Amino acid sequence: MNRFKITELGKEVFWLRDSERDHLARVLRLKPGDLVVGFDNTGMEYTSVIRKIEDKSVTCQILSTDHPDVEAHTSVYIVAGLSKGEKMEWVIQKGTELGMEGLIPLRAKRSVMQLEGSKAQERVVRWQKIASEAAKQSHRVQEPKILEVSAWKDLAERLPENTQWLIPYEEEKTQRLVSVLDTLDPQRPIAILIGPEGGFDETEVSMAQEKLGAKSVSLGPRILRTETAALATLTMVLAHYGDLG
Amino acid sequence: MNRFKITELGKEVFWLRDSERDHLARVLRLKPGDLVVGFDNTGMEYTSVIRKIEDKSVTCQILSTDHPDVEAHTSVYIVAGLSKGEKMEWVIQKGTELGMEGLIPLRAKRSVMQLEGSKAQERVVRWQKIASEAAKQSHRVQEPKILEVSAWKDLAERLPENTQWLIPYEEEKTQRLVSVLDTLDPQRPIAILIGPEGGFDETEVSMAQEKLGAKSVSLGPRILRTETAALATLTMVLAHYGDLG
Repeated sequence: MNRFKITELGKEVFWLRDSERDHLARVLRLKPGDLVVGFDNTGMEYTSVIRKIEDKSVTCQILSTDHPDVEAHTSVYIVAGLSKGEKMEWVIQKGTELGMEGLIPLRAKRSVMQLEGSKAQERVVRWQKIASEAAKQSHRVQEPKILEVSAWKDLAERLPENTQWLIPYEEEKTQRLVSVLDTLDPQRPIAILIGPEGGFDETEVSMAQEKLGAKSVSLGPRILRTETAALATLTMVLAHYGDLG
Repeated sequence: MNRFKITELGKEVFWLRDSERDHLARVLRLKPGDLVVGFDNTGMEYTSVIRKIEDKSVTCQILSTDHPDVEAHTSVYIVAGLSKGEKMEWVIQKGTELGMEGLIPLRAKRSVMQLEGSKAQERVVRWQKIASEAAKQSHRVQEPKILEVSAWKDLAERLPENTQWLIPYEEEKTQRLVSVLDTLDPQRPIAILIGPEGGFDETEVSMAQEKLGAKSVSLGPRILRTETAALATLTMVLAHYGDLG
Protein backbone atom coordinates (compact mmCIF):
# COMPACT_ATOMS: atom_id res chain seq x y z
CA MET A 1 0.00 0.00 0.00
CA ASN A 2 1.27 3.47 -0.84
CA ARG A 3 2.13 5.75 2.04
CA PHE A 4 1.34 9.45 2.31
CA LYS A 5 2.08 12.19 4.77
CA ILE A 6 -1.17 13.59 6.08
CA THR A 7 -1.72 17.31 5.50
CA GLU A 8 -4.69 17.64 7.84
CA LEU A 9 -6.13 15.03 10.18
CA GLY A 10 -9.83 14.97 11.04
CA LYS A 11 -11.73 12.56 13.23
CA GLU A 12 -12.57 9.88 10.70
CA VAL A 13 -10.89 11.27 7.62
CA PHE A 14 -7.66 12.94 6.59
CA TRP A 15 -6.77 15.20 3.69
CA LEU A 16 -3.74 15.24 1.41
CA ARG A 17 -2.82 18.48 -0.36
CA ASP A 18 -0.01 19.92 -2.50
CA SER A 19 2.74 17.45 -3.42
CA GLU A 20 1.12 14.52 -1.58
CA ARG A 21 -2.14 15.08 -3.43
CA ASP A 22 -0.32 15.38 -6.73
CA HIS A 23 1.77 12.30 -6.11
CA LEU A 24 -1.33 10.24 -5.36
CA ALA A 25 -3.46 11.56 -8.20
CA ARG A 26 -1.03 12.39 -10.97
CA VAL A 27 2.00 10.17 -10.48
CA LEU A 28 0.47 7.03 -9.00
CA ARG A 29 -2.96 7.64 -10.58
CA LEU A 30 -4.79 6.10 -7.67
CA LYS A 31 -8.60 6.19 -7.71
CA PRO A 32 -11.42 6.50 -5.17
CA GLY A 33 -11.77 3.10 -3.51
CA ASP A 34 -8.01 2.40 -3.47
CA LEU A 35 -6.39 1.74 -0.11
CA VAL A 36 -3.56 3.91 1.23
CA VAL A 37 -1.68 4.42 4.48
CA GLY A 38 -1.37 7.89 6.01
CA PHE A 39 1.02 9.02 8.71
CA ASP A 40 1.31 12.33 10.52
CA ASN A 41 4.73 12.19 12.18
CA THR A 42 3.26 11.45 15.60
CA GLY A 43 4.04 7.75 15.38
CA MET A 44 0.50 6.82 14.30
CA GLU A 45 -0.42 5.12 11.05
CA TYR A 46 -3.89 5.23 9.40
CA THR A 47 -5.01 2.59 6.93
CA SER A 48 -7.59 4.33 4.79
CA VAL A 49 -9.64 4.29 1.63
CA ILE A 50 -9.62 7.13 -0.89
CA ARG A 51 -13.06 8.78 -1.01
CA LYS A 52 -12.66 11.88 -3.13
CA ILE A 53 -9.97 13.24 -5.43
CA GLU A 54 -10.28 16.97 -6.13
CA ASP A 55 -8.08 19.58 -7.77
CA LYS A 56 -6.60 20.75 -4.52
CA SER A 57 -7.04 17.84 -2.14
CA VAL A 58 -7.68 14.16 -1.63
CA THR A 59 -10.06 12.98 1.10
CA CYS A 60 -9.33 9.61 2.70
CA GLN A 61 -11.56 7.78 5.14
CA ILE A 62 -9.75 6.12 8.02
CA LEU A 63 -10.45 2.40 8.39
CA SER A 64 -8.02 1.54 11.16
CA THR A 65 -5.47 3.29 13.35
CA ASP A 66 -2.19 1.72 14.45
CA HIS A 67 0.88 2.60 16.44
CA PRO A 68 3.46 0.30 14.81
CA ASP A 69 6.67 -0.37 16.73
CA VAL A 70 8.84 0.67 13.81
CA GLU A 71 10.85 3.61 15.17
CA ALA A 72 14.15 3.18 17.00
CA HIS A 73 13.84 3.58 20.78
CA THR A 74 17.18 5.33 21.10
CA SER A 75 17.36 8.75 19.41
CA VAL A 76 20.46 8.82 17.25
CA TYR A 77 21.47 11.94 15.34
CA ILE A 78 24.17 12.23 12.69
CA VAL A 79 26.15 15.47 12.64
CA ALA A 80 27.74 15.39 9.20
CA GLY A 81 30.58 17.64 8.09
CA LEU A 82 29.48 19.09 4.76
CA SER A 83 30.79 16.93 1.94
CA LYS A 84 30.02 16.62 -1.73
CA GLY A 85 26.36 16.51 -2.68
CA GLU A 86 25.99 12.87 -3.49
CA LYS A 87 27.55 11.69 -0.25
CA MET A 88 25.28 13.81 1.94
CA GLU A 89 22.27 12.54 0.02
CA TRP A 90 23.30 8.94 0.50
CA VAL A 91 23.83 9.42 4.21
CA ILE A 92 20.41 11.06 4.54
CA GLN A 93 18.62 8.41 2.51
CA LYS A 94 20.28 5.41 4.12
CA GLY A 95 20.40 6.98 7.57
CA THR A 96 16.64 7.37 7.35
CA GLU A 97 16.10 3.75 6.39
CA LEU A 98 18.33 2.57 9.20
CA GLY A 99 16.45 4.68 11.75
CA MET A 100 18.21 7.95 12.54
CA GLU A 101 16.20 10.58 14.40
CA GLY A 102 17.71 13.53 12.54
CA LEU A 103 20.77 15.00 10.86
CA ILE A 104 22.66 18.25 11.30
CA PRO A 105 24.87 19.42 8.40
CA LEU A 106 28.01 20.96 9.89
CA ARG A 107 30.40 23.51 8.39
CA ALA A 108 33.66 21.73 9.19
CA LYS A 109 37.12 23.14 8.56
CA ARG A 110 37.86 20.79 5.71
CA SER A 111 34.39 21.04 4.12
CA VAL A 112 34.99 22.00 0.51
CA MET A 113 31.56 23.54 0.27
CA GLN A 114 30.56 25.97 3.02
CA LEU A 115 26.87 26.48 2.42
CA GLU A 116 25.67 29.91 3.54
CA GLY A 117 22.41 31.87 3.49
CA SER A 118 19.71 31.02 0.99
CA LYS A 119 21.80 28.32 -0.67
CA ALA A 120 21.99 26.50 2.63
CA GLN A 121 18.25 26.82 3.13
CA GLU A 122 17.47 25.49 -0.34
CA ARG A 123 19.76 22.56 0.24
CA VAL A 124 18.12 21.70 3.54
CA VAL A 125 14.70 21.71 1.85
CA ARG A 126 16.05 19.28 -0.74
CA TRP A 127 17.61 17.05 1.92
CA GLN A 128 14.41 17.06 3.94
CA LYS A 129 12.57 15.84 0.87
CA ILE A 130 15.03 12.96 0.50
CA ALA A 131 14.52 12.04 4.16
CA SER A 132 10.74 12.19 3.79
CA GLU A 133 10.78 9.93 0.73
CA ALA A 134 13.08 7.44 2.43
CA ALA A 135 10.88 7.44 5.52
CA LYS A 136 7.91 6.40 3.41
CA GLN A 137 9.82 3.73 1.58
CA SER A 138 11.16 2.21 4.78
CA HIS A 139 7.66 2.30 6.37
CA ARG A 140 8.66 4.70 9.13
CA VAL A 141 5.97 6.72 10.87
CA GLN A 142 8.22 9.63 11.78
CA GLU A 143 10.36 11.48 9.29
CA PRO A 144 13.84 12.32 10.47
CA LYS A 145 14.37 16.05 10.74
CA ILE A 146 17.15 17.65 8.70
CA LEU A 147 18.20 20.62 10.83
CA GLU A 148 19.70 23.82 9.48
CA VAL A 149 23.33 23.97 8.43
CA SER A 150 25.32 24.76 11.58
CA ALA A 151 28.67 26.06 12.68
CA TRP A 152 30.57 24.38 15.52
CA LYS A 153 29.58 27.09 17.98
CA ASP A 154 25.84 26.50 17.45
CA LEU A 155 25.92 22.74 17.73
CA ALA A 156 25.24 22.40 21.43
CA GLU A 157 21.98 24.35 21.13
CA ARG A 158 20.66 22.25 18.30
CA LEU A 159 20.15 19.09 20.35
CA PRO A 160 18.78 18.38 23.84
CA GLU A 161 21.09 19.26 26.69
CA ASN A 162 21.49 15.65 27.79
CA THR A 163 22.77 14.51 24.37
CA GLN A 164 25.76 12.16 24.41
CA TRP A 165 28.29 13.01 21.71
CA LEU A 166 30.52 10.52 19.88
CA ILE A 167 33.30 11.44 17.48
CA PRO A 168 34.88 8.63 15.44
CA TYR A 169 38.49 9.61 14.90
CA GLU A 170 41.28 7.87 13.00
CA GLU A 171 43.90 8.88 15.55
CA GLU A 172 41.93 7.32 18.40
CA LYS A 173 43.66 3.97 18.73
CA THR A 174 42.54 2.61 22.08
CA GLN A 175 38.90 3.49 22.77
CA ARG A 176 36.66 1.32 20.64
CA LEU A 177 33.12 2.29 19.72
CA VAL A 178 31.59 -0.84 21.20
CA SER A 179 33.16 -0.35 24.62
CA VAL A 180 32.04 3.28 24.77
CA LEU A 181 28.49 2.27 23.84
CA ASP A 182 28.41 0.09 26.95
CA THR A 183 28.86 3.25 29.05
CA LEU A 184 26.14 5.39 27.40
CA ASP A 185 22.50 5.70 28.41
CA PRO A 186 20.21 4.62 25.54
CA GLN A 187 17.37 6.66 27.07
CA ARG A 188 19.27 9.85 26.25
CA PRO A 189 19.95 11.08 22.69
CA ILE A 190 23.22 10.13 21.00
CA ALA A 191 24.89 12.31 18.37
CA ILE A 192 27.53 10.94 16.00
CA LEU A 193 29.98 13.57 14.72
CA ILE A 194 31.35 12.61 11.31
CA GLY A 195 34.00 14.63 9.51
CA PRO A 196 33.84 15.74 5.87
CA GLU A 197 36.13 14.25 3.22
CA GLY A 198 39.58 14.45 4.75
CA GLY A 199 38.13 14.17 8.26
CA PHE A 200 38.03 16.58 11.18
CA ASP A 201 41.24 18.33 12.05
CA GLU A 202 42.82 17.97 15.47
CA THR A 203 41.48 21.27 16.82
CA GLU A 204 37.93 20.28 15.91
CA VAL A 205 38.28 16.99 17.77
CA SER A 206 39.66 18.78 20.86
CA MET A 207 36.87 21.34 20.67
CA ALA A 208 34.23 18.61 20.47
CA GLN A 209 35.79 16.90 23.46
CA GLU A 210 36.00 20.07 25.56
CA LYS A 211 32.84 21.93 24.58
CA LEU A 212 30.47 19.01 23.99
CA GLY A 213 32.08 16.36 26.16
CA ALA A 214 32.36 14.22 23.03
CA LYS A 215 34.03 10.84 23.35
CA SER A 216 36.43 9.99 20.56
CA VAL A 217 36.11 6.42 19.34
CA SER A 218 37.90 4.09 16.98
CA LEU A 219 35.94 2.26 14.30
CA GLY A 220 38.72 -0.26 13.74
CA PRO A 221 41.89 -0.54 11.67
CA ARG A 222 40.46 0.13 8.22
CA ILE A 223 40.06 3.68 6.93
CA LEU A 224 36.43 4.43 6.09
CA ARG A 225 35.18 7.12 3.75
CA THR A 226 33.04 9.76 5.44
CA GLU A 227 29.72 8.36 4.22
CA THR A 228 30.71 4.80 5.12
CA ALA A 229 31.78 5.89 8.60
CA ALA A 230 28.48 7.69 9.17
CA LEU A 231 26.30 4.75 8.18
CA ALA A 232 28.45 2.08 9.83
CA THR A 233 28.50 3.98 13.12
CA LEU A 234 24.75 4.56 12.99
CA THR A 235 24.23 0.85 12.27
CA MET A 236 26.45 -0.22 15.16
CA VAL A 237 24.83 2.20 17.63
CA LEU A 238 21.29 1.13 16.71
CA ALA A 239 22.24 -2.56 16.72
CA HIS A 240 23.96 -2.22 20.10
CA TYR A 241 20.72 -1.10 21.75
CA GLY A 242 18.51 -3.59 19.92
CA ASP A 243 17.03 -1.14 17.42
CA LEU A 244 18.37 -2.88 14.34
CA GLY A 245 19.21 -6.46 13.36
CA MET B 1 51.94 7.54 1.65
CA ASN B 2 50.47 6.21 -1.58
CA ARG B 3 49.76 2.52 -1.82
CA PHE B 4 50.41 0.24 -4.79
CA LYS B 5 49.75 -3.36 -5.65
CA ILE B 6 53.04 -5.11 -6.28
CA THR B 7 53.45 -6.69 -9.72
CA GLU B 8 56.58 -8.68 -8.88
CA LEU B 9 58.25 -9.09 -5.53
CA GLY B 10 62.01 -9.60 -5.21
CA LYS B 11 64.14 -9.99 -2.13
CA GLU B 12 64.87 -6.36 -1.41
CA VAL B 13 62.93 -4.67 -4.17
CA PHE B 14 59.58 -4.88 -5.90
CA TRP B 15 58.40 -3.80 -9.31
CA LEU B 16 55.24 -2.07 -10.42
CA ARG B 17 54.09 -2.44 -14.01
CA ASP B 18 51.08 -1.60 -16.20
CA SER B 19 48.36 0.42 -14.48
CA GLU B 20 50.18 0.60 -11.16
CA ARG B 21 53.30 1.95 -12.88
CA ASP B 22 51.23 4.46 -14.84
CA HIS B 23 49.30 5.58 -11.81
CA LEU B 24 52.51 6.25 -9.90
CA ALA B 25 54.38 7.95 -12.71
CA ARG B 26 51.73 9.68 -14.76
CA VAL B 27 48.82 10.38 -12.45
CA LEU B 28 50.56 10.99 -9.13
CA ARG B 29 53.85 12.10 -10.76
CA LEU B 30 55.94 10.61 -7.99
CA LYS B 31 59.73 10.75 -8.34
CA PRO B 32 62.72 8.61 -7.38
CA GLY B 33 63.29 9.17 -3.66
CA ASP B 34 59.56 9.37 -2.81
CA LEU B 35 58.22 6.88 -0.29
CA VAL B 36 55.42 4.45 -1.13
CA VAL B 37 53.75 1.40 0.38
CA GLY B 38 53.44 -1.81 -1.60
CA PHE B 39 51.22 -4.81 -0.87
CA ASP B 40 50.96 -8.17 -2.58
CA ASN B 41 47.65 -9.60 -1.30
CA THR B 42 49.40 -11.97 1.11
CA GLY B 43 48.73 -9.73 4.11
CA MET B 44 52.21 -8.16 4.03
CA GLU B 45 52.95 -4.48 3.55
CA TYR B 46 56.26 -3.05 2.30
CA THR B 47 57.31 0.52 3.03
CA SER B 48 59.68 1.45 0.23
CA VAL B 49 61.51 4.16 -1.63
CA ILE B 50 61.20 4.66 -5.39
CA ARG B 51 64.57 3.98 -7.07
CA LYS B 52 63.92 3.98 -10.76
CA ILE B 53 61.03 4.99 -13.01
CA GLU B 54 61.14 3.51 -16.49
CA ASP B 55 58.76 3.31 -19.41
CA LYS B 56 57.47 -0.11 -18.48
CA SER B 57 58.20 -0.44 -14.79
CA VAL B 58 58.99 1.24 -11.49
CA THR B 59 61.58 -0.25 -9.14
CA CYS B 60 61.09 0.28 -5.41
CA GLN B 61 63.56 -0.63 -2.70
CA ILE B 62 62.00 -2.16 0.40
CA LEU B 63 62.85 -0.35 3.64
CA SER B 64 60.65 -2.27 6.05
CA THR B 65 58.21 -5.16 6.01
CA ASP B 66 55.07 -5.32 8.14
CA HIS B 67 52.13 -7.59 8.75
CA PRO B 68 49.52 -5.06 9.91
CA ASP B 69 46.47 -6.37 11.76
CA VAL B 70 44.08 -4.64 9.41
CA GLU B 71 42.07 -7.48 7.90
CA ALA B 72 38.91 -8.87 9.50
CA HIS B 73 39.46 -12.20 11.26
CA THR B 74 36.09 -13.57 10.23
CA SER B 75 35.66 -14.10 6.48
CA VAL B 76 32.42 -12.49 5.42
CA TYR B 77 31.14 -12.69 1.85
CA ILE B 78 28.27 -10.78 0.32
CA VAL B 79 26.17 -12.62 -2.25
CA ALA B 80 24.35 -9.80 -3.98
CA GLY B 81 21.35 -10.25 -6.26
CA LEU B 82 22.17 -8.26 -9.40
CA SER B 83 20.76 -4.77 -9.09
CA LYS B 84 21.26 -1.53 -10.96
CA GLY B 85 24.87 -0.57 -11.66
CA GLU B 86 25.31 2.17 -9.13
CA LYS B 87 24.02 0.09 -6.24
CA MET B 88 26.36 -2.83 -6.92
CA GLU B 89 29.27 -0.43 -7.15
CA TRP B 90 28.41 1.17 -3.83
CA VAL B 91 28.13 -2.19 -2.13
CA ILE B 92 31.48 -3.25 -3.54
CA GLN B 93 33.24 -0.02 -2.61
CA LYS B 94 31.81 0.28 0.89
CA GLY B 95 31.87 -3.44 1.54
CA THR B 96 35.58 -3.37 0.82
CA GLU B 97 36.21 -0.52 3.23
CA LEU B 98 34.20 -2.26 5.93
CA GLY B 99 36.18 -5.46 5.48
CA MET B 100 34.37 -8.02 3.35
CA GLU B 101 36.38 -10.97 2.06
CA GLY B 102 34.66 -11.13 -1.29
CA LEU B 103 31.43 -10.70 -3.22
CA ILE B 104 29.45 -12.95 -5.54
CA PRO B 105 27.01 -11.30 -7.95
CA LEU B 106 23.92 -13.50 -8.19
CA ARG B 107 21.35 -13.78 -10.96
CA ALA B 108 18.23 -13.56 -8.82
CA LYS B 109 14.67 -13.99 -10.09
CA ARG B 110 13.83 -10.33 -9.70
CA SER B 111 17.15 -9.01 -11.02
CA VAL B 112 16.27 -6.59 -13.78
CA MET B 113 19.61 -7.14 -15.45
CA GLN B 114 20.71 -10.74 -15.97
CA LEU B 115 24.33 -10.39 -17.03
CA GLU B 116 25.50 -13.17 -19.30
CA GLY B 117 28.67 -14.11 -21.18
CA SER B 118 31.20 -11.45 -22.06
CA LYS B 119 29.11 -8.65 -20.58
CA ALA B 120 29.22 -10.38 -17.24
CA GLN B 121 32.97 -10.84 -17.50
CA GLU B 122 33.56 -7.20 -18.36
CA ARG B 123 31.43 -6.11 -15.46
CA VAL B 124 33.32 -8.32 -13.04
CA VAL B 125 36.61 -6.79 -14.22
CA ARG B 126 35.18 -3.33 -13.56
CA TRP B 127 33.89 -4.36 -10.14
CA GLN B 128 37.22 -5.90 -9.24
CA LYS B 129 38.88 -2.59 -10.07
CA ILE B 130 36.52 -0.77 -7.73
CA ALA B 131 37.31 -3.25 -4.95
CA SER B 132 41.04 -2.90 -5.57
CA GLU B 133 40.88 0.89 -5.40
CA ALA B 134 38.78 0.81 -2.24
CA ALA B 135 41.21 -1.66 -0.65
CA LYS B 136 44.05 0.78 -1.19
CA GLN B 137 42.12 3.74 0.12
CA SER B 138 41.07 1.88 3.26
CA HIS B 139 44.66 0.62 3.82
CA ARG B 140 43.78 -3.01 3.46
CA VAL B 141 46.50 -5.49 2.57
CA GLN B 142 44.21 -7.96 0.86
CA GLU B 143 41.85 -7.04 -1.92
CA PRO B 144 38.43 -8.63 -1.72
CA LYS B 145 37.76 -10.94 -4.61
CA ILE B 146 34.78 -10.27 -6.88
CA LEU B 147 33.78 -13.72 -8.06
CA GLU B 148 32.08 -14.47 -11.35
CA VAL B 149 28.37 -13.83 -11.82
CA SER B 150 26.59 -16.94 -10.57
CA ALA B 151 23.30 -18.71 -10.79
CA TRP B 152 21.66 -20.18 -7.70
CA LYS B 153 22.70 -23.70 -8.64
CA ASP B 154 26.42 -22.79 -8.70
CA LEU B 155 26.49 -20.92 -5.42
CA ALA B 156 27.45 -23.77 -3.12
CA GLU B 157 30.61 -24.50 -5.13
CA ARG B 158 31.80 -20.91 -5.05
CA LEU B 159 32.57 -20.82 -1.35
CA PRO B 160 34.21 -23.23 1.10
CA GLU B 161 32.08 -26.16 2.13
CA ASN B 162 31.89 -25.06 5.76
CA THR B 163 30.41 -21.64 4.88
CA GLN B 164 27.52 -20.48 7.05
CA TRP B 165 24.77 -18.82 5.02
CA LEU B 166 22.50 -16.00 6.19
CA ILE B 167 19.53 -14.65 4.29
CA PRO B 168 17.93 -11.43 5.58
CA TYR B 169 14.25 -11.67 4.72
CA GLU B 170 11.41 -9.23 5.29
CA GLU B 171 8.95 -12.01 6.06
CA GLU B 172 11.17 -13.42 8.81
CA LYS B 173 9.58 -11.85 11.86
CA THR B 174 10.99 -13.80 14.78
CA GLN B 175 14.63 -14.75 14.20
CA ARG B 176 16.78 -11.67 14.64
CA LEU B 177 20.22 -11.35 13.08
CA VAL B 178 21.96 -10.73 16.37
CA SER B 179 20.62 -13.89 18.01
CA VAL B 180 21.61 -16.02 15.02
CA LEU B 181 25.13 -14.56 15.08
CA ASP B 182 25.49 -15.90 18.61
CA THR B 183 25.08 -19.40 17.22
CA LEU B 184 27.59 -19.14 14.34
CA ASP B 185 31.28 -20.03 14.38
CA PRO B 186 33.41 -16.96 13.52
CA GLN B 187 36.26 -19.27 12.48
CA ARG B 188 34.20 -20.44 9.53
CA PRO B 189 33.21 -18.23 6.57
CA ILE B 190 29.89 -16.42 6.63
CA ALA B 191 27.95 -15.53 3.48
CA ILE B 192 25.20 -12.92 3.48
CA LEU B 193 22.58 -13.43 0.76
CA ILE B 194 21.01 -10.12 -0.26
CA GLY B 195 18.16 -9.86 -2.75
CA PRO B 196 18.04 -7.48 -5.71
CA GLU B 197 15.64 -4.52 -5.79
CA GLY B 198 12.30 -6.04 -4.87
CA GLY B 199 13.97 -8.72 -2.77
CA PHE B 200 14.18 -12.48 -3.14
CA ASP B 201 10.99 -14.30 -3.88
CA GLU B 202 9.67 -16.99 -1.57
CA THR B 203 10.97 -19.89 -3.63
CA GLU B 204 14.49 -18.47 -3.56
CA VAL B 205 14.38 -18.17 0.21
CA SER B 206 13.16 -21.78 0.55
CA MET B 207 15.84 -22.95 -1.85
CA ALA B 208 18.56 -21.16 0.11
CA GLN B 209 17.27 -22.74 3.30
CA GLU B 210 17.08 -26.24 1.86
CA LYS B 211 20.11 -26.37 -0.44
CA LEU B 212 22.53 -24.16 1.47
CA GLY B 213 21.18 -24.51 4.99
CA ALA B 214 20.78 -20.73 5.03
CA LYS B 215 19.26 -19.18 8.12
CA SER B 216 16.69 -16.48 7.43
CA VAL B 217 17.07 -13.46 9.68
CA SER B 218 15.19 -10.26 10.40
CA LEU B 219 17.04 -6.95 10.28
CA GLY B 220 14.31 -5.18 12.26
CA PRO B 221 11.03 -3.43 11.54
CA ARG B 222 12.17 -0.89 8.95
CA ILE B 223 12.35 -1.81 5.28
CA LEU B 224 15.88 -1.40 3.92
CA ARG B 225 16.85 -0.94 0.30
CA THR B 226 19.02 -3.74 -1.07
CA GLU B 227 22.30 -1.81 -0.83
CA THR B 228 21.50 -0.60 2.68
CA ALA B 229 20.64 -4.12 3.80
CA ALA B 230 23.91 -5.48 2.39
CA LEU B 231 26.11 -2.93 4.13
CA ALA B 232 24.18 -2.86 7.40
CA THR B 233 24.29 -6.66 7.67
CA LEU B 234 28.00 -6.74 6.86
CA THR B 235 28.60 -4.04 9.48
CA MET B 236 26.64 -5.91 12.14
CA VAL B 237 28.33 -9.24 11.41
CA LEU B 238 31.84 -7.75 11.53
CA ALA B 239 31.03 -5.72 14.66
CA HIS B 240 29.54 -8.77 16.38
CA TYR B 241 32.84 -10.65 16.14
CA GLY B 242 35.02 -7.65 17.03
CA ASP B 243 36.22 -6.91 13.50
CA LEU B 244 34.71 -3.42 13.31
CA GLY B 245 33.97 -0.64 15.81
